[in-house]
Parts: sequence; C-alpha cells; structure tokens
Amino acid sequence: MVQIPNQPVPPSPAQRPVPTSADVARLAGVSRATVSYVLNNTSAVRISEPTRRRVHEAAKDLGYVPHAAARSLRAGHSRMVLMPAPAVPVGPLYSRFFSELQGALGRLDYTVVQYGSAGLHGDEAARAWAELRPVAVLVPGSGLGPQGVAVLKRSGARAVVTLGPERVEGAHALLMDHDRVGHSAGVHLAARGRRRVGVVVPEEPGLEIFSRPRLEGVRRALGGTGATTTELPLAYEEEAAARLAARWRELGLDGVFAYNDEYAMLLMRALQDAGIAVPEETAVVGADDLMLGRLLRPRLSTVHIELPSGRDLAELVDRAVREPGAGPETHEVLGARVVHRDSS
Amino acid sequence: MVQIPNQPVPPSPAQRPVPTSADVARLAGVSRATVSYVLNNTSAVRISEPTRRRVHEAAKDLGYVPHAAARSLRAGHSRMVLMPAPAVPVGPLYSRFFSELQGALGRLDYTVVQYGSAGLHGDEAARAWAELRPVAVLVPGSGLGPQGVAVLKRSGARAVVTLGPERVEGAHALLMDHDRVGHSAGVHLAARGRRRVGVVVPEEPGLEIFSRPRLEGVRRALGGTGATTTELPLAYEEEAAARLAARWRELGLDGVFAYNDEYAMLLMRALQDAGIAVPEETAVVGADDLMLGRLLRPRLSTVHIELPSGRDLAELVDRAVREPGAGPETHEVLGARVVHRDSS
Repeated sequence: MVQIPNQPVPPSPAQRPVPTSADVARLAGVSRATVSYVLNNTSAVRISEPTRRRVHEAAKDLGYVPHAAARSLRAGHSRMVLMPAPAVPVGPLYSRFFSELQGALGRLDYTVVQYGSAGLHGDEAARAWAELRPVAVLVPGSGLGPQGVAVLKRSGARAVVTLGPERVEGAHALLMDHDRVGHSAGVHLAARGRRRVGVVVPEEPGLEIFSRPRLEGVRRALGGTGATTTELPLAYEEEAAARLAARWRELGLDGVFAYNDEYAMLLMRALQDAGIAVPEETAVVGADDLMLGRLLRPRLSTVHIELPSGRDLAELVDRAVREPGAGPETHEVLGARVVHRDSS
Repeated sequence: MVQIPNQPVPPSPAQRPVPTSADVARLAGVSRATVSYVLNNTSAVRISEPTRRRVHEAAKDLGYVPHAAARSLRAGHSRMVLMPAPAVPVGPLYSRFFSELQGALGRLDYTVVQYGSAGLHGDEAARAWAELRPVAVLVPGSGLGPQGVAVLKRSGARAVVTLGPERVEGAHALLMDHDRVGHSAGVHLAARGRRRVGVVVPEEPGLEIFSRPRLEGVRRALGGTGATTTELPLAYEEEAAARLAARWRELGLDGVFAYNDEYAMLLMRALQDAGIAVPEETAVVGADDLMLGRLLRPRLSTVHIELPSGRDLAELVDRAVREPGAGPETHEVLGARVVHRDSS
C-alpha cells in the first residue's frame, strides 16, 4: 500500500468516554427508566410530549446511541439472525441468494449478520455463535451436530436452520442435496448415448461438500447402465486443463460433467485447443446456468440449480422464531434440471 | 418449497430458561465473580485448580455459554470488526478479498461481522452499526459522512476505515478510485489508435459507484487527444447486447471499454454475431482479469485491478484499534494496469 502523508491529527473523539443512558437521564433531568421508555418507543407507559422531547434532545446533544447488546440483555433476545460467512469465495448464485435473503429478513425487521468464524468447526463454532445471542441461526453446509444445535438453543436461539445435505436433530432442515445436480447431468449424458463419463472434481479446497455429492449423483445415474464414471481432479488453471486435455484420448472419455459452468468453460476450451470436437467426440455439461456459458460456441449445456427463494426462507425463520416449540420443519429446496444447448 | 412430513415433535430445549453465570455459580458453590474470572481466564486473580475444575464442570453440565454482549458491556468494547454487507451481489474479486480479510482478522483474534443494513443509508446506517458496539468498522463504498464517523467513535469504535473514492473526516481512508480503471483502458485504446470510444455503463442498479468514475477515467484519458467518448447504457442480457450491436456501425465506434470482463464478453459475442470484426473493426477491453476472458477467441484484453491485501488491511485495523489517538491514515490502494491480449 502506498501511504499518503497524514493530515494534521485532530483530537480524536474516541478518547472521550462513551455516553450512556445515565448521562442522557442526567442531562434531561429524568430517570434512566424514562430514557429507556422514550428511546425504545414503549407504548405501555404514558410519557408527556415535553419529557419525550427533552430526552430526545439530550440524546442528540450527547451523541448517545442505544446499545443493542444491553437491550438484548434486558429483552432476553435480539432480532439478530446469524449466518456463518462462507470460508471460500462464493459464486454468483450464492451471492444473489444471500442478497435476497438479507433484503427479505430486513423487511421483517431482522438484522442479518454474517459471522466469520475462520478456523472454528462444528460445535466449537456453535459456541462462538451462541456468544452473540442471535434469535435465529442459519447454517449453510455441514458440520453442525445435535450438540451444537442444543448449545445454540440453550443460549436463546429460537430457531436453528441448516442448509445442507442432511437433517440435524433439533434443527429445521432445508435439504440441499447436490447429488441431484450430478444425477441430472448423468441421466442426460446417458440419454445422449455417452458410455464413458468423466466427472470433474475441483482441486480447490472447500468445494468437497458440493463436488463429492455431485460425483455420487453421476455414479447413481449411470449405475446399472453399463456406463463408467471416471473421477477427474482439476485445478482452475489453464495449464491444468491443457494437461488433462492432452491425455483425453488415452482416458477414452466421450462425455464429461465438469462440476460447474466455470470448470466446464475452462475444460471445453482446452479440449477444443487439443483438437477434440465438442460435442461429437466428447459431450460437456456444466452447472449453474451462468449467462457466460451461452456466449461460448458451442453453447454450453448446463444444470440449472434452483435455490430456495430468500423470501420463503425469511418466512420460515420468522415463523420459527414466533413458535419456537413447534418442532422442526424439513423442506427439500434444491431443484436441478438440465438445460440442453449445443455442447452435449 | 416441498415440505416433507414432520418428524415427531421433541420437547424443545428453547423452552427452558437460558442458563446464566449465576446458575453456574450456584451449582459450583462459588461467587459470580469467580465464575467470570475462571471462564474469562483472568490471570490477575489466583484461583485454585479444584475450584476452576468445579466451575468448568458446572458450566458444561448447564450448557452455559458466556454472553459476548455482557462481556463487551463489562470490558467497554468488543473484538468485533463490523463491515456492512454489500447490497448488490458481489463479484469474484470482492468475494476473494473478503475471504482473505476475514481470515487475516481472525488470526489477529477479531471476529468479522457483515451487517446487512438493507434500506438504511449514510448516518442512519452508522447509528444501526453503532448499536452493536464494534471495536472497528470497515465501510466500503461511499455514503458515510463525518457525522456517521463521529457517531461510531462516540459509541466506542476505535477505528473507522472507509474503502472508497474519498476521504471522510475522522476516518482512516483506503482510497479506491475507480477512475484509474477507466483511465488505463482509455490510455490503452488511444495508444491502439482508437478515436471513437464507447464506454459501457451497466443498467443494473447499485453499480453506479464503480461505473461513473470508470467512465470519467476514460474521458480524462481521451481529453485533448481529439478522440470522442460515447456512453453506452447496457443491461446484462443477451437481447440488450444484440440490440446494441445492431446499431454499432451507426454509432461509428472503433473501440469500447466494457465496464468489466462479464459485460465485455457479452458485448464481444454480440458484436461478433453481428459480423463486426474484433479487434480490427472495434477493439474491446474489459476489467477484472477474470480467467474466463482468456478462454474466448480473440482473448480478451482487460484491466487488471489490484485490491489491498486482506493482510495489509487487517494490520491497519489492528494498529488503529491499538492506537485510537494516532490520527487517520490515508492509503491509495487501488492499482490498475492493462493486460493486453488479442481483442484490442
């Protein structure tokens, strides 16, 4: 980083003590309880308009901001919905899903907080999340066990929702089984007459929770058809794709499910550069239905993945928070269907 | 969503009261202060090994988790670094930057929290963030003013860091001026002899904070050279790109800076489909240096953007938290250089 010469140092407001509700009460000449009633807009207590005005003015003069933590300590719970932040960079599909969820929960007056618990796993991570006393926790991926769910509930979380391949005892489950993605691709390739099918498994860490079930899904689709499945580890680099393409004929594959559209685009270019005709000699199928796949020639066939809508998920969270005793719901939320274009 | 029939409803642990440190103290037969000393690992107070063990066992039996909010109320500050979550889906560059930053801050023992303040703007958003009492706040984009910085500092934030085009009084500034991205592209296109340059401005909302300065950067680069700059609004859709390509010759453009690689790939395909030779008739330049741009033919020229490293930024935050009175630092952190391939 290039540092630019500093401006003159102004007196830092951080040095002054943080104003509290007691300071506001003193300046306004009222009790702390009155400050709390006014600033939290409590309708249960009648407070005169001039008193309200005095409290608001004192809070403004002092620059007082209520402390969410103190408020949640008093109320016993917060409006915070906590989601662990993904440890790997996310794709456009997840990014869009998260924006939508955040907007939908915001409209229901929840605050969504993504919590970066780098290096923590399973129940240890659950303890770290519990310390923030969220009212609901949404956990993508796997790793949270029944112990972790219990820790979260004992610390006051009214709803724990997992988004992953399996149910976890005590939690609501949005089942997202990526086996389906591979299965759709496998069924499609078999229907296109392919008998020796490769499956790309990214070498980048953190993607196993998606790539393993996708591979299993292809295996399941081809089981009993006499077609074979070959696992193809691949790093997301041009050189790695060129090396794989160079031994393609030796592998004798006539079709490939390439994990997602990005790996598919990478591999298809390498196959074309190595003189292998797509789809005649090898059919290529991606996943995610990115627009860029339509720009290639041949246009890329892909598995279109349906994630749950942010609004549906927000409503599930809200229902679960309102009725914490209602018992866990389980929903199948991952849809997968092949979009057949020209590469297969 | 397809609902799967419910499992039998187990008694919900959420119905039981949340255990407190007073419960732990009672079960262990010690004072609350002792519980706090033991669980916070305070070394200032000598506590016998059997007592420590009793406290830990009682906490475990009750499923007690310390309350981060209560702890930060006592300590006066937290280890929470708050970042507003982006309101628009993010690209791979930002996603990677955020993962890296999160890891680097985690290693320095901070917890990174992305806060979804959908619908809040400027100083109003600052008040919402302040309620969580973060020790540091990282604000991407523009919108936070000196008032907001002051609110955050008065509520105990020791460091406020903006990542955007301008300094904000009282905050550390990581200046990210996207003008530079457009400027590099403009200089390159002029050097390639292009005289009538189009600049794609995405129609998708939320991207103006990047697209406006990029456009200005091209204008600045071409100013005084006699070359013209034409603003080209474009939605990220094949049909929109085809419509733009259909009137390309009428526009009379011989070069285009297409905002980023994704819009560039979209537009380049549409131009090729409309029979316009790239780069002979029109040069195309993207930005972000995505790997996919290298897979196209012709290979896409692009502006490579250097973001600050997560580690550098984490160190700046840590330094600022330790020395809150040290006065704001300003760093120029956005680097931009053209990677010349075959499309220009």
